[in-house]
Amino acid sequence: MSSTTTTRVAACQLAPTVGDLPANAEVSATAVRTAISAGADVVVLPELVTSGYVFSSPEEARGVAVTPEHGVFAAWAAACTARDGAVVVGGFCELGDDGLLYNSAAVVDASGVRAVYRKAHLWDREKLVFTPGSSAPPVVDTAHGRIAVMVCYDLEFPEWTRTAALPTAERPGADLIAVPTNWPLVPRPAGERVPEVVIAMAAARVNHVAIACADRSGTERGVDWNEGTSIVSADGWVVSEVGAGTGVAWADLDLAASRDKRLTEHAHLLDDRRPELYGAVV
Amino acid sequence: MSSTTTTRVAACQLAPTVGDLPANAEVSATAVRTAISAGADVVVLPELVTSGYVFSSPEEARGVAVTPEHGVFAAWAAACTARDGAVVVGGFCELGDDGLLYNSAAVVDASGVRAVYRKAHLWDREKLVFTPGSSAPPVVDTAHGRIAVMVCYDLEFPEWTRTAALPTAERPGADLIAVPTNWPLVPRPAGERVPEVVIAMAAARVNHVAIACADRSGTERGVDWNEGTSIVSADGWVVSEVGAGTGVAWADLDLAASRDKRLTEHAHLLDDRRPELYGAVV
Repeated sequence: MSSTTTTRVAACQLAPTVGDLPANAEVSATAVRTAISAGADVVVLPELVTSGYVFSSPEEARGVAVTPEHGVFAAWAAACTARDGAVVVGGFCELGDDGLLYNSAAVVDASGVRAVYRKAHLWDREKLVFTPGSSAPPVVDTAHGRIAVMVCYDLEFPEWTRTAALPTAERPGADLIAVPTNWPLVPRPAGERVPEVVIAMAAARVNHVAIACADRSGTERGVDWNEGTSIVSADGWVVSEVGAGTGVAWADLDLAASRDKRLTEHAHLLDDRRPELYGAVV
Repeated sequence: MSSTTTTRVAACQLAPTVGDLPANAEVSATAVRTAISAGADVVVLPELVTSGYVFSSPEEARGVAVTPEHGVFAAWAAACTARDGAVVVGGFCELGDDGLLYNSAAVVDASGVRAVYRKAHLWDREKLVFTPGSSAPPVVDTAHGRIAVMVCYDLEFPEWTRTAALPTAERPGADLIAVPTNWPLVPRPAGERVPEVVIAMAAARVNHVAIACADRSGTERGVDWNEGTSIVSADGWVVSEVGAGTGVAWADLDLAASRDKRLTEHAHLLDDRRPELYGAVV
C-alpha cells in the first residue's frame, strides 16, 4: 500500500469509435494522462476501449485486435510515470497467442502490463466473436493495494465477485475490483439506478470490497449505453458517478479498509460463509 | 401453479413483543387472516415473529421456543383455508427434537406445515442462542409455484440465494424466495434504500427470481429496525414497500415468469455461469 491511506480513483466514461484503433489509442491515452495529471492513483477505462464494441463481424474485431505488446499499453504505462504508483485498468480486444480473440482487460503501471484478464462470462453476441477466458480475475499487488479486474457481464455473477474478494491459500482478496464495462441501454423505472450499478453495490457490500465501474458513452451502430460509470465504496454506497455523456467519476477511497471483513463482535462477512453447504452452486 | 398467472403477495411488517408467545401468536394469526381476507395468496411474516428477537438470555429464548406442532402453525393453516391455495411463510424460535434452539421459518398452507427451514447464517449474537441450520433452503411446490425460504442474514450470502434459485437434478429452482427478517437499524446515506433491500434487488436480478422480505417494526430493548419490508420483482425492482411502522406491502406477481432465465438470444442467466471456474468459493 502507499504511505497514505487514501487512493484517488478515476473511472473514465469515454466514447471510443468502433474499428478505429489509432483514434481509440489516443482517446484512452489522453484520458489516462489527464486523470493522472489531475491526481488519479488508479484510472479505470471502459471495456474494449481500444476497439469499440458493436462489431459488424468477427473479421472487423480481428482487424483491431492487439496483443499486450501493443503501443497503446506502452502509452498508458508512460502516463503512469507522471505519478508514483499510478495504475491503469482498461479493456481491449485481444489477439491471443493462440490466434483466438478475447474480450480482455489489462492492468498497467509504470513498469508496463502487470496482468491481462480474459472475460469469462461473454454477453450475448460477444459469443460469436470472442473465446471466453478460463482463469479467475487476477488480483494484482500494486502500490495502492490489491486490484482485481473483471469485465462487464462478469460482475453479474456473484460467484465471480466473490472469487475476486475472497482470500484463499493461493491468492489474496481484492481491495478494489476494477470493472471496464460497456452496458447497453436497458429500461429502468424512474428514479432507479442503472441495474448493473445496483448489482455492484450489493457485490461491494456483501464482500466489503470497493468497486469502480467505467462504462462508455456515444451511440454506436444504433446502440446506446446506460452511462453508468460509478465508484462504489466497500460499504456498498455509490460515492461518485458520471451520468450522461463522457466524464470522469472521482473518489478518494481507503482501500486498506476493504480488508476488514468484520461487521460486529460476532459477525464476519467471510467467516460467516458456509462453504460446506454451497456444493449445489458449483 | 394456480389457474391465473398472478399471485398476490403480502409481506407483513409487524411488531411482535419479545418473550410473549401468546400475544405474538395472536398478532401473527391476525395478520395472516387479515391479509388472506384481503386477497393474499402468499403471506410473508417477519423472522422470529412468534418470539421477538432481542433475547436477554438463551433461557429466555428457550422459554418461547416451539415445535412445528405448536398451535400457532395450526392457526396460520386455518387462516389459509379461507382462500384456495394460500401459503404463509413466517419465522419462529424452534425447539428442535434434538433439544437445540434454531432460528427457523415455516412454510404453511391449509394442509399444515409443509417445510421448516433453519437459518444457516446466524447474525452476531444469535450465535450465543441458536444452532445454525445445515440444510439448503427448501423449495416448496405450492399452489402458487415454487416458494423457497431463507432468513434475514442468509440473504446476504449470494451463494444462498443462488442455491435457492438454481435448478439441480435434486431440486427445482425457486419462483419466489420468501425472507422473514429482522433488520436492525443501520445508517444509510440520504435517499438510499435499506442496504439489505439493495442486496435483495441484486439477488433477484442476477437469478431472475422474485423476493419478498418481511421486516419488523417496534423498538425492542433499545433496538430499532430498518423497517425495510419490500417485494422485489424477478427483474430486480422494488414493486412494493411498507416504510416506517407496521403495515403490509402488496404485489401482484407473475411467478411463472421467474422460470424464464433467458435474457437475449445468446444470453441466459444460469447457462452463462461457469461453475467449473468457481471452485475457489466453496
